Amino acid sequence: MDQQVGLGSLCFAKAPFIIGTASVVGTKEGEGPLADAFDCIGPDDKFGQQTWEAAESSLQKEALTLALGKADQKPEDMRYLFAGDLLGQLIASSFGLKTFEIPLFGLYGACSTCGEALALSAMTVAAGYADRVAAVTSSHFASAEKQFRFPLEYANQRPVSATWTVTGGGAFILSKDAKQPLAKVAGVTTGKIVDYGIKDSMNMGAVMAPAAAELIAQNLTDFKRKPEDYDRIITGDLGEVGQQILFDLLLKKGMDIRKQHEDCGMLIFDSQTQGTGSGGSGCGCAASVLSAHFLPKLASGELKRILFVPTGALLSTVSFNEGQTIPGIAHGVVLESCVSSAKKEG
Amino acid sequence: MDQQVGLGSLCFAKAPFIIGTASVVGTKEGEGPLADAFDCIGPDDKFGQQTWEAAESSLQKEALTLALGKADQKPEDMRYLFAGDLLGQLIASSFGLKTFEIPLFGLYGACSTCGEALALSAMTVAAGYADRVAAVTSSHFASAEKQFRFPLEYANQRPVSATWTVTGGGAFILSKDAKQPLAKVAGVTTGKIVDYGIKDSMNMGAVMAPAAAELIAQNLTDFKRKPEDYDRIITGDLGEVGQQILFDLLLKKGMDIRKQHEDCGMLIFDSQTQGTGSGGSGCGCAASVLSAHFLPKLASGELKRILFVPTGALLSTVSFNEGQTIPGIAHGVVLESCVSSAKKEG
Repeated sequence: MDQQVGLGSLCFAKAPFIIGTASVVGTKEGEGPLADAFDCIGPDDKFGQQTWEAAESSLQKEALTLALGKADQKPEDMRYLFAGDLLGQLIASSFGLKTFEIPLFGLYGACSTCGEALALSAMTVAAGYADRVAAVTSSHFASAEKQFRFPLEYANQRPVSATWTVTGGGAFILSKDAKQPLAKVAGVTTGKIVDYGIKDSMNMGAVMAPAAAELIAQNLTDFKRKPEDYDRIITGDLGEVGQQILFDLLLKKGMDIRKQHEDCGMLIFDSQTQGTGSGGSGCGCAASVLSAHFLPKLASGELKRILFVPTGALLSTVSFNEGQTIPGIAHGVVLESCVSSAKKEG
Repeated sequence: MDQQVGLGSLCFAKAPFIIGTASVVGTKEGEGPLADAFDCIGPDDKFGQQTWEAAESSLQKEALTLALGKADQKPEDMRYLFAGDLLGQLIASSFGLKTFEIPLFGLYGACSTCGEALALSAMTVAAGYADRVAAVTSSHFASAEKQFRFPLEYANQRPVSATWTVTGGGAFILSKDAKQPLAKVAGVTTGKIVDYGIKDSMNMGAVMAPAAAELIAQNLTDFKRKPEDYDRIITGDLGEVGQQILFDLLLKKGMDIRKQHEDCGMLIFDSQTQGTGSGGSGCGCAASVLSAHFLPKLASGELKRILFVPTGALLSTVSFNEGQTIPGIAHGVVLESCVSSAKKEG
């Protein structure tokens, strides 16, 4: 019962394992720096559907199907599904996942949803409530633009501070036991809503950086760790603008994470050649990059321990148009390699 | 580790307690049959705010503040907050709860969110992840009409099968120990998405009844119980139309719950005199009726054991306008009185 760590974290007595994962992305992501790592790159961004929302549902369904297959599991082996997306009333998840017939907890944490889903999945397995569960999140550039900004046909211009919503999804299978785990979820840190009063919906990095800074500081304090105790501290989609703010905020707290920090949004696109502004964003950004890029490095032992911190901006067009600020939130997940040092070096 | 019951339920080895609750509702709810039971009836439906969305945030904030006070707890005593509402991107919760600065899990299960929040809250406390947590959900007639149907100014007509979104919210404080608990959360049953292919957004009862039927059947099967093992089986907002469908579906499975069933949506309004169609609906309906009407009966020992089953319809205006069906979901929570029979009879 000594799993509560500090004021905001949990350290699992029996850490659950990630035994399978898959990533599915769109064409632009398939032309970016991580192209070779993704499991599936759609031939177009419609994924065989008539609407952008149905396309997002389709890529979420594909991600879970692939992850189940790679983990050698059937849908009925999953006791629970933790899932969410960016769309109002989570329609990408509802329509993407209904055919699996798995008891569902629908989640919304904006672009931090992947962290929220992994945290609750790990909590559920570690508590003995399930032997195996799945976590799935997604986003789609076109459905998100329609939801939050303008329909694509309007062809609006964007400032360089704007991020580019990733068309993609990631699925993760968690299990209480594993023969060849990809990694284990050692702990979680759950974020509060942090509101610095920013109202610029074209600068999500600035909105989310304070939430990321508070979460990382909370995690380091709760676990009594220094930044160098992590091989990587990975944010979801702060982008170039948000990264600088994150560094500044943490340096003021006496924490220097510049050597450890990477941002999924900065990894998935080459902003210089792909015109993606400050970087990638969306629930699907952190999920697909964790799945395709970081989990293999934990599986091989190249990385020993990472802090994965997807970040979300809490707004809707309604709150934005009514003049509200844009609060941020972040969810942290501590992932550790299951490969022992001796084994790797030997 | 023997907490997994059947295919879809959990039975807690150490059942968490509900140690405080509060309900806040609008004017129409304050003129209904349960008027005397609510903690707070707003003087108008704006709750001192300029917009309907801010009004909903305000009532959610008031509900949590009152519940904390009644439980003699401070916000910082809550390790986690589980919250959600009906609005896109959960803006009622984000803006209503940000000042509490409690680590937040944002949830979306449409009108079933109260059950989802109570389930995850109970799972978290029972696992030893927190000593105390809070669950909060809300809905508002005017913000919901704007979100899902038409702005109020349009004055659209509604068929009698339509339900009336409750302006209200409920908050619940869960704790691992209690001196004078209101009730304990003995177990939960988590619902799958159930889609009967209905496309009529003015008949939510028909959309949600199949999900409620499957959940109740799953609960009775998992716990090896008969309907009479519950003093009440309480759905969230099926209304009169949905109730009939629920009875029919369960009778086909050989389960007759007609003696035990009550529906929060049918209790909160007097449809004959209040013009509320099939009954009340929304996250705030089940939450406020559980808080104001049923929890006191469990606290007094008048009810010994109930199955609380809020139901949700998974749609957005986007999915609806694109011709999608409306799937349903339900979340079940088993609540038991902490008053022993001897004590009550004595």
